[in-house]
Amino acid sequence: MSDLRIVIAGAGGRMGRTLIKAISEAGGLVLVGALEHSGSAHLGEDAGLMAGLRADGVTVESDVAPTLNGADVVVDFSSPGASVRLAERLAEAGIAHVIGTTGFSHADNAAIAAAARRTPVVKSGNMSLGVNLLAALTRRVAATLDESFDIEIVEMHHNKKVDAPSGTALLLGEAAAQGRGCELSTSSERGRDGVTGARKPGAIGFASLRGGSVVGEHMVIFAGPSERIELAHKAEDRMIFARGALAAARWAKGREPGLYSMADVLGLSDF
Amino acid sequence: MSDLRIVIAGAGGRMGRTLIKAISEAGGLVLVGALEHSGSAHLGEDAGLMAGLRADGVTVESDVAPTLNGADVVVDFSSPGASVRLAERLAEAGIAHVIGTTGFSHADNAAIAAAARRTPVVKSGNMSLGVNLLAALTRRVAATLDESFDIEIVEMHHNKKVDAPSGTALLLGEAAAQGRGCELSTSSERGRDGVTGARKPGAIGFASLRGGSVVGEHMVIFAGPSERIELAHKAEDRMIFARGALAAARWAKGREPGLYSMADVLGLSDF
Amino acid sequence: MSDLRIVIAGAGGRMGRTLIKAISEAGGLVLVGALEHSGSAHLGEDAGLMAGLRADGVTVESDVAPTLNGADVVVDFSSPGASVRLAERLAEAGIAHVIGTTGFSHADNAAIAAAARRTPVVKSGNMSLGVNLLAALTRRVAATLDESFDIEIVEMHHNKKVDAPSGTALLLGEAAAQGRGCELSTSSERGRDGVTGARKPGAIGFASLRGGSVVGEHMVIFAGPSERIELAHKAEDRMIFARGALAAARWAKGREPGLYSMADVLGLSDF
Amino acid sequence: MSDLRIVIAGAGGRMGRTLIKAISEAGGLVLVGALEHSGSAHLGEDAGLMAGLRADGVTVESDVAPTLNGADVVVDFSSPGASVRLAERLAEAGIAHVIGTTGFSHADNAAIAAAARRTPVVKSGNMSLGVNLLAALTRRVAATLDESFDIEIVEMHHNKKVDAPSGTALLLGEAAAQGRGCELSTSSERGRDGVTGARKPGAIGFASLRGGSVVGEHMVIFAGPSERIELAHKAEDRMIFARGALAAARWAKGREPGLYSMADVLGLSDF
Repeated sequence: MSDLRIVIAGAGGRMGRTLIKAISEAGGLVLVGALEHSGSAHLGEDAGLMAGLRADGVTVESDVAPTLNGADVVVDFSSPGASVRLAERLAEAGIAHVIGTTGFSHADNAAIAAAARRTPVVKSGNMSLGVNLLAALTRRVAATLDESFDIEIVEMHHNKKVDAPSGTALLLGEAAAQGRGCELSTSSERGRDGVTGARKPGAIGFASLRGGSVVGEHMVIFAGPSERIELAHKAEDRMIFARGALAAARWAKGREPGLYSMADVLGLSDF
Repeated sequence: MSDLRIVIAGAGGRMGRTLIKAISEAGGLVLVGALEHSGSAHLGEDAGLMAGLRADGVTVESDVAPTLNGADVVVDFSSPGASVRLAERLAEAGIAHVIGTTGFSHADNAAIAAAARRTPVVKSGNMSLGVNLLAALTRRVAATLDESFDIEIVEMHHNKKVDAPSGTALLLGEAAAQGRGCELSTSSERGRDGVTGARKPGAIGFASLRGGSVVGEHMVIFAGPSERIELAHKAEDRMIFARGALAAARWAKGREPGLYSMADVLGLSDF
Repeated sequence: MSDLRIVIAGAGGRMGRTLIKAISEAGGLVLVGALEHSGSAHLGEDAGLMAGLRADGVTVESDVAPTLNGADVVVDFSSPGASVRLAERLAEAGIAHVIGTTGFSHADNAAIAAAARRTPVVKSGNMSLGVNLLAALTRRVAATLDESFDIEIVEMHHNKKVDAPSGTALLLGEAAAQGRGCELSTSSERGRDGVTGARKPGAIGFASLRGGSVVGEHMVIFAGPSERIELAHKAEDRMIFARGALAAARWAKGREPGLYSMADVLGLSDF
Repeated sequence: MSDLRIVIAGAGGRMGRTLIKAISEAGGLVLVGALEHSGSAHLGEDAGLMAGLRADGVTVESDVAPTLNGADVVVDFSSPGASVRLAERLAEAGIAHVIGTTGFSHADNAAIAAAARRTPVVKSGNMSLGVNLLAALTRRVAATLDESFDIEIVEMHHNKKVDAPSGTALLLGEAAAQGRGCELSTSSERGRDGVTGARKPGAIGFASLRGGSVVGEHMVIFAGPSERIELAHKAEDRMIFARGALAAARWAKGREPGLYSMADVLGLSDF
């Protein structure tokens, strides 16, 4: 089988460079193009060197058409506007699109959904296989157990993180709320402190720990009468987001047109 | 809705007495009969007093027919022979049968399967909701992740336990092997000690901790490149087995005839 | 060696009855008296029966003097006023006093300190050996590691608990602050929620989980650059408080007069 | 205060290069020399470039005397023979010596002890602050709690590790045995599998997990009647060994001659 031919959009950003490194470490993948916006200081650089590797002969370009030539999949961590324009180009060309960009408007999302009618698009705000798997498990367990099991979500991140709970903790909370058939916005118990009273039945609790250089750990606890189920994810480095995006790229190639999530990539959309 | 009318078989054993206590604490359940074998020292005792509660007017009997009168479900932690004979009686009477007895022969299992063609039978070697849920999750995650995720199963029990790994750890190992499509017998790594060499790809590892009065904790770890998924169950007391059996009893009443597992009770048979 | 002769004060309360049970399970201890206040409904009851055991021939009394006759130690979970009066009686009689009562005023504490000049008194708001050991370890580790290690304290308790953080979490926070030489009141980060900004150097963080029937779990995390130290205590049932009080009773008998803590009982006062 | 002037011995090895990186990231430290054996392919290279950093003008040399000129401390991860020869040179010159080399013979150790009568020497087989702290805590807790608390040591490492238990787990086991006053060799329970019988009172149990890319996690569990104390260390990357060695270097400068351990550096030698 020939190698999967990948173009990175947003190649000069932190995730772009991590993707270039992840492609070089994986088998069966080859980097065939590297895109940046027309004002990027990286234009003209060798993509391998830019990622701290050896030169790989791929030059960072802003011109989309020639770069796409021969590509199977574009993995895209650029910006909302660039991703929308790219989605349209890839729909015309029939090239699969893996989108890790975040911050889309409703109009952006509609444009991407339209493009996905003509080519496979995988789109997710968090590309880690493990986190997406944890979310699917959380939804299913929340649907299985009744309210005699209290749901608590606890996360730990490094001491530079400025918001709490983490975006991933909230994503897990949404999965729990979906599974249980309630609204997260009216069920959350956050920032417990002082005389709180007994826990409200059906509440979904959040707690945030901060310290050291912890990359990211999340645990969902289902605490019932005399037993607990705990589902946890522990990230050791940020490379997992690149690996998840590349797994999505492998999965997307040759797929029917459609807008897919990481749950589809994992085969968990029936959860 | 009227209360679910339950008979306990093996009422004088540890699980039988725990069930009597669990029924008294739950809502919507009523104990209507308590069976023991004809040589039991408990015959004639009041079931409530036997369980350390107040008298409840139910006398421990060995005579099955009158005891079954008016029962919806029999919850049975007796002995293999007694359970097989009871299965036949309940099939005739159309009364649901929840079987927590263990140690059945192949012939016993065949006889129970035959009875299950006429009445609903739920049968499991471990009645805890949480453990059965953990097993279902383990199977599904093992089917989702490839061999780049190493599977490790670690359990801790009190210092009186004489075997390792625990039966539940092995049950979880079977679930992992099913999910991954391998044989547990040829994939297990148990009792690592000394110069073991690098971990074998695809192996399912087991480790057993013993100490104190720990009721039972099990964790299944999926350790991949730079990330881990951990699924755990922690039991606080043995009452969870009684609660699971009573959940099965509620679920079984009025069900179609058939041989069911706790995965069916949990709605997880599609995992 | 003859058995240690123990009187329980506050014998009819939850801790009193747990102590009676713990004495009956331990070796080398004998219950010789059971005190309650003069309005107690338990006066005249057999102490064993009151604790759910067999009759032990010890009657619950309100009259202190005859009850103390021949006692080695009084273990006291009564009320502040009763404990202060008892301290004075025990100082006169030279009988050791183990005080688990809480809620003392400054004047009460002064009176107990005065009594402790004549007889050994062990006084603690939390009698668990494990919790007191965890506090001593926390103080020492906080004194050893510098502020490049962030301190976080996380606890989980059952869903009926009405305050957060738990009293024990705050006790651990005090130990951490002492070790580090800072004030807990100005260093605490509690109830993180929303845009909190980066963690403040030197802060001591708290997080509280609530769910199910968890008796009590506490963890102190020291999270530094690329490594973490975690110190945890997990309680399985409330009997540990009774066992700790009885360990204090054994330790106190024959000791020099003085006001002692559980750290002294554990031999950790030099930490 | 002027910067601490450090020479690295074994500069071309994995730990040597990690130390060069750690010095460049720390404040108050300056690399003034880099030693390798006379056959090393790194001789003549720039030390910074060799470590994947910018050139720092320090050339890798095999000639000891000129390299030591002006150094405050030598941090040494070379080989037993080289470390012994270096110890003698540093004793003459009165330069502090931090030794992370392992594999010394009894004669080597005696020679190093002799050198330590003239200059401060810090020597440890594991330079992580956290692991050494965990060992000190383990020894102290084992000395505090009696045999009603069972000691279990569990560790997890990546799937390439070839031996079990890890060297650090055995070091923790030694600390536990010292604290308890027993022999590890006759108290160990390793590789539990099959019908083991009940746990032996006083045993120290070991269990090893292997999987993924886990850098190293160790936990010491003290499991008693109804409560557990757990002490854990989690390493995120190997940089912690370099940081510990540099902490030892800072501590050693200007110290009285003597042979010191990491427990001395941490101020825990009285544990």
